[in-house]
Amino acid sequence: MYLKDVVKTLVISVTIVSALLPPFFANAAKAEYKWKMVTTWPKNFPGLGTGANDLAKLIGDMSNGRIQVKVYGAKELVGALEVFDAVSRGTAEMGHGAGYYWKGKVPAGQFFAAVPFGLTAQEMNSWIYSGGGLALWQEAYAPFGIIPMPGGNTGVQMGGWFNKEINSLGDLKGLKMRIPGLGGEVLKRAGGTPVLLPGGEIFPALQSGAIDATEWVGPYNDMAFGLHKAAKYYYYPGWHEPGTTLEALINKKAFNKLPKDLQSIVLNATRVANANMLAEYTARNNAALERLVKEHKVDLRPYPTEVLEQLKSLSEQVVKEEAQKDPMSKKVYASYTTFREQAVDWHKISEQSYLNSRNPE
Amino acid sequence: MYLKDVVKTLVISVTIVSALLPPFFANAAKAEYKWKMVTTWPKNFPGLGTGANDLAKLIGDMSNGRIQVKVYGAKELVGALEVFDAVSRGTAEMGHGAGYYWKGKVPAGQFFAAVPFGLTAQEMNSWIYSGGGLALWQEAYAPFGIIPMPGGNTGVQMGGWFNKEINSLGDLKGLKMRIPGLGGEVLKRAGGTPVLLPGGEIFPALQSGAIDATEWVGPYNDMAFGLHKAAKYYYYPGWHEPGTTLEALINKKAFNKLPKDLQSIVLNATRVANANMLAEYTARNNAALERLVKEHKVDLRPYPTEVLEQLKSLSEQVVKEEAQKDPMSKKVYASYTTFREQAVDWHKISEQSYLNSRNPE
Repeated sequence: MYLKDVVKTLVISVTIVSALLPPFFANAAKAEYKWKMVTTWPKNFPGLGTGANDLAKLIGDMSNGRIQVKVYGAKELVGALEVFDAVSRGTAEMGHGAGYYWKGKVPAGQFFAAVPFGLTAQEMNSWIYSGGGLALWQEAYAPFGIIPMPGGNTGVQMGGWFNKEINSLGDLKGLKMRIPGLGGEVLKRAGGTPVLLPGGEIFPALQSGAIDATEWVGPYNDMAFGLHKAAKYYYYPGWHEPGTTLEALINKKAFNKLPKDLQSIVLNATRVANANMLAEYTARNNAALERLVKEHKVDLRPYPTEVLEQLKSLSEQVVKEEAQKDPMSKKVYASYTTFREQAVDWHKISEQSYLNSRNPE
Repeated sequence: MYLKDVVKTLVISVTIVSALLPPFFANAAKAEYKWKMVTTWPKNFPGLGTGANDLAKLIGDMSNGRIQVKVYGAKELVGALEVFDAVSRGTAEMGHGAGYYWKGKVPAGQFFAAVPFGLTAQEMNSWIYSGGGLALWQEAYAPFGIIPMPGGNTGVQMGGWFNKEINSLGDLKGLKMRIPGLGGEVLKRAGGTPVLLPGGEIFPALQSGAIDATEWVGPYNDMAFGLHKAAKYYYYPGWHEPGTTLEALINKKAFNKLPKDLQSIVLNATRVANANMLAEYTARNNAALERLVKEHKVDLRPYPTEVLEQLKSLSEQVVKEEAQKDPMSKKVYASYTTFREQAVDWHKISEQSYLNSRNPE
């Protein structure tokens, strides 16, 4: 070997080795995976949009920038309700939304978002993570090449905004109300007309009279949209969405290309984001509620007990019927109701009993 | 440069470069950081011990084995109640326990575990993650070189096991009961004698009559210790521990040696483990409760309303007094009570109102 060959070998060796070096040594900012996340929310919308940002940041931080996830608000890349399709097609590697927004494609998905008189946030997480829910959810989305994970939770939502009093079930009759998913089906059974609108379109629709009433999330989010400027009565509790689970969608092909550690980081980042969002809502809702009532003179009211009882029995009926419409929904419903029975029994003597002893009604 | 010098240079270059290569290329199984986690729980104890295992596994998976955390049960390396000291000294890089076990060292730590008539699991997470709690907790533990994080939650616990009926507050008088932290202080004020015992020592103490009564966690855990074999009455709700937060302790020096991405992985793994444990308890408690009642003929009872009312007013008084004993507790108590006020107001019209409409008492 001549000297110049040896030097050549050395140069080549160093070049090859450099190429193998992770970005940390070469350039910390150089991502191995550049992902897009499309969302159903207005960019940076409090709680929901910022929750999607949180998820993207967690993935970047834990992976040392090996995965970079760029978040898009509704309409930036695709429409609010096109998130599921975009992730399915691979237009985006991730999405952030809620299962009831694409119930036309996957009716079973609704059960993983919100069920009237169903599970609370704590119970949803328990069903999904520890009660067999996650496997069913992933089975339901598998035909679309999507891996779903819980990606946030709002806790118990508010019952909605109305421009008239709700004194009886009959007062819901003829009402055109923005309310998604199974809650919307219950409203329909009560004689109302459910309308599906993404968050960003609610306020103009309510103000113009295109809809008579709406629900959205809770005080923190509802005030951000200014819903109090277009409706007078604010009812509670959110019987139709008692612990709404938002979803992080992951394109399965993109996921499968990741090494095991990055797969673990992506999946666990959704768990962190899920918990963080509930913590944020629980911390922010009351201050917003106080402002709504004190500054904006919103008329805060409980649904009459009788109305809730009637809505509950309608809900049991409607949800059961909806679940019979396709095999996957039937399977999910069976798992959900079995879990709910035991969760209700346990929470009667724990969460519920405790809350009532801490603050008698 | 002679040929042999060039070859020497090449060998040295390759050696240096190899040394810089991450373990992924050299040997995926070779950990860069070998950590120990000492715990207050019997090794692999359901929920608590397995929760510590979960945390260790999450760190290993997400870091691709760059951090390996070996979990030790109580007494394997240090005693159940010596976990805090062991992490403070650096004997172990991590620990898993609960703040009220070392109240002799950090009285303020109790507020991050459980407060009688205080915050539920959802509220604790909210206060800690989004309500300023975490910064105060880390401030309280900083003098000991420890970074604390929530590392699990049991949800509302059970009220405890007794061998006599509790019909009035007077029935607690003279009772020697295993009950840690602030709950123990309330029992003392009611005329009882609180005893601090780690989980693994409860059953023999109750069976031998060294204690008259005990609380532990809930059906899933209490049955695992066989507490129903040594006591007859099982009371609810756990007014003294409404959402007990377990803690992951991290030795600060060890943490500071980690690169940023591994720091993020460790901190976020605690968030995942925290949520996973609550999901598990919520999913498992009811089946255990059914077995306790049906198979083991346990006498399940609610505390009389009057007793709960009296315990509540005692609790307000005792907790307030305890908080005045040192400046850090005072600061934590102020943050805690401010947060509790708003959380109670919000949950009155959301979680509580919803649970009562779903299942009227």
